[in-house]
Amino acid sequence: MQPEEAKELLVRVQQGVISVDEAMLALRRLPIEDLGFARLDVHRELRQGMPEAIYAEGKETHQTVAIARRTMERTTGPVIATRVPPATAEALLEAFPDALHHAVARLVILRADAGQEPRGLLVVVNAGTSDLPVSEEAAVVAEAMGIKVERMNDVGVAGLHRVLEAQDALHEADVVVVVAGMEGALASIVGGLTSAPVVAVPTSVGYGASFDGLAALLGMLTSCAAGIVVCNIDNGFGAAMFALKLLRKRSQ
Amino acid sequence: MQPEEAKELLVRVQQGVISVDEAMLALRRLPIEDLGFARLDVHRELRQGMPEAIYAEGKETHQTVAIARRTMERTTGPVIATRVPPATAEALLEAFPDALHHAVARLVILRADAGQEPRGLLVVVNAGTSDLPVSEEAAVVAEAMGIKVERMNDVGVAGLHRVLEAQDALHEADVVVVVAGMEGALASIVGGLTSAPVVAVPTSVGYGASFDGLAALLGMLTSCAAGIVVCNIDNGFGAAMFALKLLRKRSQ
Amino acid sequence: MQPEEAKELLVRVQQGVISVDEAMLALRRLPIEDLGFARLDVHRELRQGMPEAIYAEGKETHQTVAIARRTMERTTGPVIATRVPPATAEALLEAFPDALHHAVARLVILRADAGQEPRGLLVVVNAGTSDLPVSEEAAVVAEAMGIKVERMNDVGVAGLHRVLEAQDALHEADVVVVVAGMEGALASIVGGLTSAPVVAVPTSVGYGASFDGLAALLGMLTSCAAGIVVCNIDNGFGAAMFALKLLRKRSQ
Amino acid sequence: MQPEEAKELLVRVQQGVISVDEAMLALRRLPIEDLGFARLDVHRELRQGMPEAIYAEGKETHQTVAIARRTMERTTGPVIATRVPPATAEALLEAFPDALHHAVARLVILRADAGQEPRGLLVVVNAGTSDLPVSEEAAVVAEAMGIKVERMNDVGVAGLHRVLEAQDALHEADVVVVVAGMEGALASIVGGLTSAPVVAVPTSVGYGASFDGLAALLGMLTSCAAGIVVCNIDNGFGAAMFALKLLRKRSQ
Amino acid sequence: MQPEEAKELLVRVQQGVISVDEAMLALRRLPIEDLGFARLDVHRELRQGMPEAIYAEGKETHQTVAIARRTMERTTGPVIATRVPPATAEALLEAFPDALHHAVARLVILRADAGQEPRGLLVVVNAGTSDLPVSEEAAVVAEAMGIKVERMNDVGVAGLHRVLEAQDALHEADVVVVVAGMEGALASIVGGLTSAPVVAVPTSVGYGASFDGLAALLGMLTSCAAGIVVCNIDNGFGAAMFALKLLRKRSQ
Amino acid sequence: MQPEEAKELLVRVQQGVISVDEAMLALRRLPIEDLGFARLDVHRELRQGMPEAIYAEGKETHQTVAIARRTMERTTGPVIATRVPPATAEALLEAFPDALHHAVARLVILRADAGQEPRGLLVVVNAGTSDLPVSEEAAVVAEAMGIKVERMNDVGVAGLHRVLEAQDALHEADVVVVVAGMEGALASIVGGLTSAPVVAVPTSVGYGASFDGLAALLGMLTSCAAGIVVCNIDNGFGAAMFALKLLRKRSQ
Amino acid sequence: MQPEEAKELLVRVQQGVISVDEAMLALRRLPIEDLGFARLDVHRELRQGMPEAIYAEGKETHQTVAIARRTMERTTGPVIATRVPPATAEALLEAFPDALHHAVARLVILRADAGQEPRGLLVVVNAGTSDLPVSEEAAVVAEAMGIKVERMNDVGVAGLHRVLEAQDALHEADVVVVVAGMEGALASIVGGLTSAPVVAVPTSVGYGASFDGLAALLGMLTSCAAGIVVCNIDNGFGAAMFALKLLRKRSQ
Amino acid sequence: MQPEEAKELLVRVQQGVISVDEAMLALRRLPIEDLGFARLDVHRELRQGMPEAIYAEGKETHQTVAIARRTMERTTGPVIATRVPPATAEALLEAFPDALHHAVARLVILRADAGQEPRGLLVVVNAGTSDLPVSEEAAVVAEAMGIKVERMNDVGVAGLHRVLEAQDALHEADVVVVVAGMEGALASIVGGLTSAPVVAVPTSVGYGASFDGLAALLGMLTSCAAGIVVCNIDNGFGAAMFALKLLRKRSQ
Repeated sequence: MQPEEAKELLVRVQQGVISVDEAMLALRRLPIEDLGFARLDVHRELRQGMPEAIYAEGKETHQTVAIARRTMERTTGPVIATRVPPATAEALLEAFPDALHHAVARLVILRADAGQEPRGLLVVVNAGTSDLPVSEEAAVVAEAMGIKVERMNDVGVAGLHRVLEAQDALHEADVVVVVAGMEGALASIVGGLTSAPVVAVPTSVGYGASFDGLAALLGMLTSCAAGIVVCNIDNGFGAAMFALKLLRKRSQ
Repeated sequence: MQPEEAKELLVRVQQGVISVDEAMLALRRLPIEDLGFARLDVHRELRQGMPEAIYAEGKETHQTVAIARRTMERTTGPVIATRVPPATAEALLEAFPDALHHAVARLVILRADAGQEPRGLLVVVNAGTSDLPVSEEAAVVAEAMGIKVERMNDVGVAGLHRVLEAQDALHEADVVVVVAGMEGALASIVGGLTSAPVVAVPTSVGYGASFDGLAALLGMLTSCAAGIVVCNIDNGFGAAMFALKLLRKRSQ
Repeated sequence: MQPEEAKELLVRVQQGVISVDEAMLALRRLPIEDLGFARLDVHRELRQGMPEAIYAEGKETHQTVAIARRTMERTTGPVIATRVPPATAEALLEAFPDALHHAVARLVILRADAGQEPRGLLVVVNAGTSDLPVSEEAAVVAEAMGIKVERMNDVGVAGLHRVLEAQDALHEADVVVVVAGMEGALASIVGGLTSAPVVAVPTSVGYGASFDGLAALLGMLTSCAAGIVVCNIDNGFGAAMFALKLLRKRSQ
Repeated sequence: MQPEEAKELLVRVQQGVISVDEAMLALRRLPIEDLGFARLDVHRELRQGMPEAIYAEGKETHQTVAIARRTMERTTGPVIATRVPPATAEALLEAFPDALHHAVARLVILRADAGQEPRGLLVVVNAGTSDLPVSEEAAVVAEAMGIKVERMNDVGVAGLHRVLEAQDALHEADVVVVVAGMEGALASIVGGLTSAPVVAVPTSVGYGASFDGLAALLGMLTSCAAGIVVCNIDNGFGAAMFALKLLRKRSQ
Repeated sequence: MQPEEAKELLVRVQQGVISVDEAMLALRRLPIEDLGFARLDVHRELRQGMPEAIYAEGKETHQTVAIARRTMERTTGPVIATRVPPATAEALLEAFPDALHHAVARLVILRADAGQEPRGLLVVVNAGTSDLPVSEEAAVVAEAMGIKVERMNDVGVAGLHRVLEAQDALHEADVVVVVAGMEGALASIVGGLTSAPVVAVPTSVGYGASFDGLAALLGMLTSCAAGIVVCNIDNGFGAAMFALKLLRKRSQ
Repeated sequence: MQPEEAKELLVRVQQGVISVDEAMLALRRLPIEDLGFARLDVHRELRQGMPEAIYAEGKETHQTVAIARRTMERTTGPVIATRVPPATAEALLEAFPDALHHAVARLVILRADAGQEPRGLLVVVNAGTSDLPVSEEAAVVAEAMGIKVERMNDVGVAGLHRVLEAQDALHEADVVVVVAGMEGALASIVGGLTSAPVVAVPTSVGYGASFDGLAALLGMLTSCAAGIVVCNIDNGFGAAMFALKLLRKRSQ
Repeated sequence: MQPEEAKELLVRVQQGVISVDEAMLALRRLPIEDLGFARLDVHRELRQGMPEAIYAEGKETHQTVAIARRTMERTTGPVIATRVPPATAEALLEAFPDALHHAVARLVILRADAGQEPRGLLVVVNAGTSDLPVSEEAAVVAEAMGIKVERMNDVGVAGLHRVLEAQDALHEADVVVVVAGMEGALASIVGGLTSAPVVAVPTSVGYGASFDGLAALLGMLTSCAAGIVVCNIDNGFGAAMFALKLLRKRSQ
Repeated sequence: MQPEEAKELLVRVQQGVISVDEAMLALRRLPIEDLGFARLDVHRELRQGMPEAIYAEGKETHQTVAIARRTMERTTGPVIATRVPPATAEALLEAFPDALHHAVARLVILRADAGQEPRGLLVVVNAGTSDLPVSEEAAVVAEAMGIKVERMNDVGVAGLHRVLEAQDALHEADVVVVVAGMEGALASIVGGLTSAPVVAVPTSVGYGASFDGLAALLGMLTSCAAGIVVCNIDNGFGAAMFALKLLRKRSQ
């Protein structure tokens, strides 16, 4: 198809059938997609090292399995299914015996990013055990992508001493992910204690005026600690992706 | 007026003009306001020691001065004008030479609660200099009502050590008022550090996702620190009133 | 561990192995957590008399039971599980035969604050029977912490006479908790009738424009009655905690 | 115009120029507006006694004056300009020397509904002096339309006794308009005290969590007092219009 | 109790045991509730003719039945259960064989307001069959209270001719209730077509940007048709209560 | 009925029984609905070619079937049931053996618009497989109405090359419908790439800050690409209706 | 630059310096922007007939004039400045004496789309004079682009007869733009009366619960009339752009 | 002060005045702040290389100058005033002749981070000229902190070719900051085109449904491109701070 059109053009230039100027004109007229393969090359490079992700929530089990099968066949890099309901997880494990299921994180790692040097240290801090599904999503995905992860669970703001005890680890991190619901103040505290860049993930944990994570989201966005950035509510996967991009860039 | 009606009824019973049953019937038929003086007595007692407050924002200067004049004539207790624009403040000072103007707190103390024993210790903490108008409103009103006040200004969460240094003072307080805008996380921190009851006042300081104080308000309401209560955005006066009620109750 | 490090340092100073200046240097270099025990002492004192709380909603039964077991083993003070689903309550009662289950309040009192002098009087007012789960959460927790509680249920604003009949009791209270959904006006009424500090708890009772408690929340925050403070929607536990802090401070 | 077309059709039927069936066909083909006069008659009747209203806010002075002039020429009933800025009010008074300007209510009554029997009693209650522009808009418009109005200003909820003193007047009313900002609880109180239908008008008075009248609006909509209906924020005019419709219907 | 205290006071005045001034003093000191019987009388009169309502949603079947039983025993007027789940309806019918169940309106009429002259005409218009539960709640309650009701169902705005055909009936009405979800424009149309007062009830019918009735609510509040008032979302009962108050007032 | 009244009037004019002026008077007095047939004709023409739609969500199976039966009997044009639950779909297929069920689109086409020339080309683009129910609703309805439809599924913005590859097809379209959840940016991209008018349909796909489609809705409304218009969240049917109106107008 | 690279490649193929396969490889490796000129051609075609628009609000006068000058020099098609403040308009007229200023629409037409056949009929309906700036923005822009425009101003919903009188004109339109603030119901009415596609533009006209156009926006999005699409609040320009795309497509 | 206390303790241990156990006891009793110097050391290191920032908006000129003076005296690192109003900028330049004023970015760089090696490459992309104040705030602050910055202005999504032309530069970046208002889709596009981590900054540019930046904020948070993080609306400074932390960490 398109490559052929371009090739034919070149052949006719080579054969002297058309002049260079005529070829230029023809090239200009070619719709963009005729050169799409170039873009695909660029794109492949761009995505190199990023996992294929399958968002399983709201999909039926057979759909997720089918997508997983197709993705596993067509790619060689890491493949991860996120927000996987228990039944779908079972079906995936049956279809892919090498896959790993992380129940709390609702993840199935179909193919990890094996054989990598660990790329930097990610510290994942959460404010309470209810935030675990989100913080584990970030941690497990990062580990599957070859990042070294250190977890600090249940580091509530109200018990300030626990945050202070974590200070050294926070300093050693290359990037810190803070996962918190309710008022999300933990992000501000951690942001004021570490020299590492801090990615805040609000969670929908809470009730009443937490409005499904809105309170934590607004709190993190307006944090008085400089240099904090924010992901979508409950988006542990996105935080891991950001950390991955950051650490890959660094190790280039 | 009404007391007279009631008295007349009693006189007629005394004189035997009407029977007790007839008087009972008349008493029942009396509209409630005929016995209003009883309520007023109760009410007077209830409000004893609470200041008369004149909300000056949105009122014209002459209106505020007129209301102030009438209130000063009819009462003997403390009288305070809040959210006073500069021009109105000037006019009030001219009309009441003994009044005190607190420009930052936008208050004019027309008559303070003099000669009181200091009633307990109120610590007023704010997160930044932009919160001063609100925290000073709380502090100055409390002082005018005979409460001992200790101020801790600019205690940002991002500089956690400053909060920690304030820990002792926070323990000594009878009640703590925390005034903060942006994400309002200071309330959670202070709530976790003191045994005193904490009243949080969100402020409209901030921009963007602070949505005029909404972020701080939601954050304080959903604080993970137990035993924090919240006032309206920018309502330093309300926090002082609550502290006053609390300390008066205590000293009864 | 950490205390040992500090102790060893002192021993070496005592033995003359290192100079005072060297010890000072070492002390400065010690990560903060090496001195954590000090903080813990402070913290223990700070939390003295406050209950350990286990938020059971969204946790699986075995998780809540495990946390409860660990908390009971490591502490000697009061322990309370809140928002306990029926199945979890049953499991807790089986594991802790002395525990008490309050079904309406969704509470399991694992260990109450026994042998205390009653600390002041808390009056808990609710606007309707649908508000009972929240008001009972406040009342039962307060009682478990040794506070004397008086309940006034179903005191709707629309039947104003019922509020007026409660006026005396409201005056005697050391602190009043008002629990109301829908428009939450009861807080303003009660605030205007009592000299006691009023803590308002909006509930998610209502439909349509009550928006899951938002109408009551905004109404209570903007109440024209001075000296009212507000908790999160449905947060009866928080109101009890605030009352506890207030009454403990008072009795110090 | 249209009536002429219809008339001509009838004449031609009368003269036998066209058959009845042809006339029916023509009648069917007539665009609806050709029969518009019928509708206009209905419409005129429908609107009989309702004032022509000119919303002056956001219009330039000359525009409002021009519209007023045209309206005065084409109608004989009452004409009212609402939300009139001071400069426009002056210009209107100059153009219409018989007009009346109500500065607080921001109204200019260009032509009142003279010579009417007073139609029932409207009681307009407001919660504070800041609500006066809205409550006066309701009261002055109603008076201009021949309704007897009784005002109760500054009837704050926090001072419950003032509401109680107003109880008799509230019972005598044919309809009650309650105007309140902040939490708007006054509507619930009044609704519980009177047998008259209550129209609640939230105002934008307040700050912070009153969110420009949203708190009062939601509070009034979710009022626990049965039989309260609500107008738009600050819409005193609309409340007066509703009262007018109600009282006119009644006197038919 | 209280009446006895008052009576005793009167007897002692009659007997000359205490002077009038002493009695006045005693009367002043009496807590308000001692005179509560007066209020109750007033209250009884106020509520005369209004039904006792039991909100059944969120209550367990046995609770609703118990409340119904108590209410039926203590009152002689109309008693209505609203938002009754099917199981509760069945239980109520078993307990009260004379009760009537209206499934669509989710109502059980335990005791209607029998033997009344029909009080005026209420026209209830709805925009679509999905609005039936709300419009029927209004219609059935009104009928149970002795109001004559005419229903106009499925009068969508998009089919304007249906609204026009209803014009005559709308003119005859004493009060019109318009029930509509989605954009709620029907209220504006009807408001422009009838001389009767219009009560608009937004419903939660719709999806997406209807945000559970918010679109209809805001649309009705900001209607450009003068004299429309609004109830809470889905509150057909409230509209009926308002109509009842309006028609009772009228027939006094 | 009404036409008869008008006809009788004409006959009486023809016969000289009444004068033209009397007939005019009578015509004026006729209620609007007496001339309703004209409107109905207009209306029938107006709706010609538009399908009858039955919104099945929230209706019981028997209700939908009954409405479908009635609609099929009274009309001859296309009839479509939307948002049909599986059980209802089954019942419809049983009742109407010729009906077609599209499970993903939740549609049952009871009667399509057969025998039409295809009217123009509609390109339906969606951003991901989760948007399929909405985009298929648009596509299937359009096809049932005789529009030629080309689908482009899973054209995510993050993979820009896929959008570029679609550029030619987008240029050929007469109208483009873009269906996207999450941030909805696909609409802006497509709008910048095609000369065809673009109708954007936000979907409720997403979580957290997508707030059930609000993020996509706001994003599409504020798109920086000129000439994009927006439907309600998840409203694929509405987009198809708009495309139908547009293409019918064009082919007139 | 890039074209040169491509040309050089072709020359080398022509000269036999490199083989066709080598050239293909080189072509693939070329970054996309090397072929950018092709895209520009496509783009030029795409945008043909669309005006260059300069959004003047928030820009300083000299900035807008400079952008206008540059745009006029580099293009030959229509150029329009939107939301032009008076001072900027004056400066533009001075700089471009042939420009036309439409004060109400806040537009300066720097260069219209002259010499076009009128492309179809656009009917622009507004609900009131306050909506004029937005409806005129749509109308004037459309006229400048060679579209025939018919205006219907002040067609309020409350006066339904005015809408009905416009019915014929609405039927003749190729596309209808409805501009309305407050509750925006006019869009539903018009949508039910015309066979033409309807583009609704909510305006920020209104106060209180209109929340700066939110009420109208939500109302239009949830309209019960099928086939209505919506633009951003106050975006008359966008509606004109959509109409232009639609009519251009049609006349291709 | 505190260090002295600790030192004295050590001396007394050294001298044998107190035992090690007694010293341990004393150490435990020391309030936390007595060991504050440790924390301060840590803190100093933590903040090393981060600028002192003075938020000038809402402060009076003399306040900002005073704070600037004090900060300049007490620190030696970079000092930056943000959101500086013109008058304040002038006063700062007068007080600090070496300061640099960036009018568009509303910044005054009082002292830059001189003599640094450039730390990595930051690409700052904005969607339109109206976003310049925010994107320049990010760019200028980053430059002042020694980061190499490349700007890409006016890269609108609607002109996709401009984004594609920027692809190479985006790949070279160590971190990319995308600044966009309206629907904010540019972040998704850029996120799909670069392997660098992307920090998105929504701006308040837009009108109507952009709701002061909310549309862009939600759009960026829910972006379908993996690995995008978000700052507060208009917070260019925060994005620069995050980039600084990220690049400093990397170069450690």
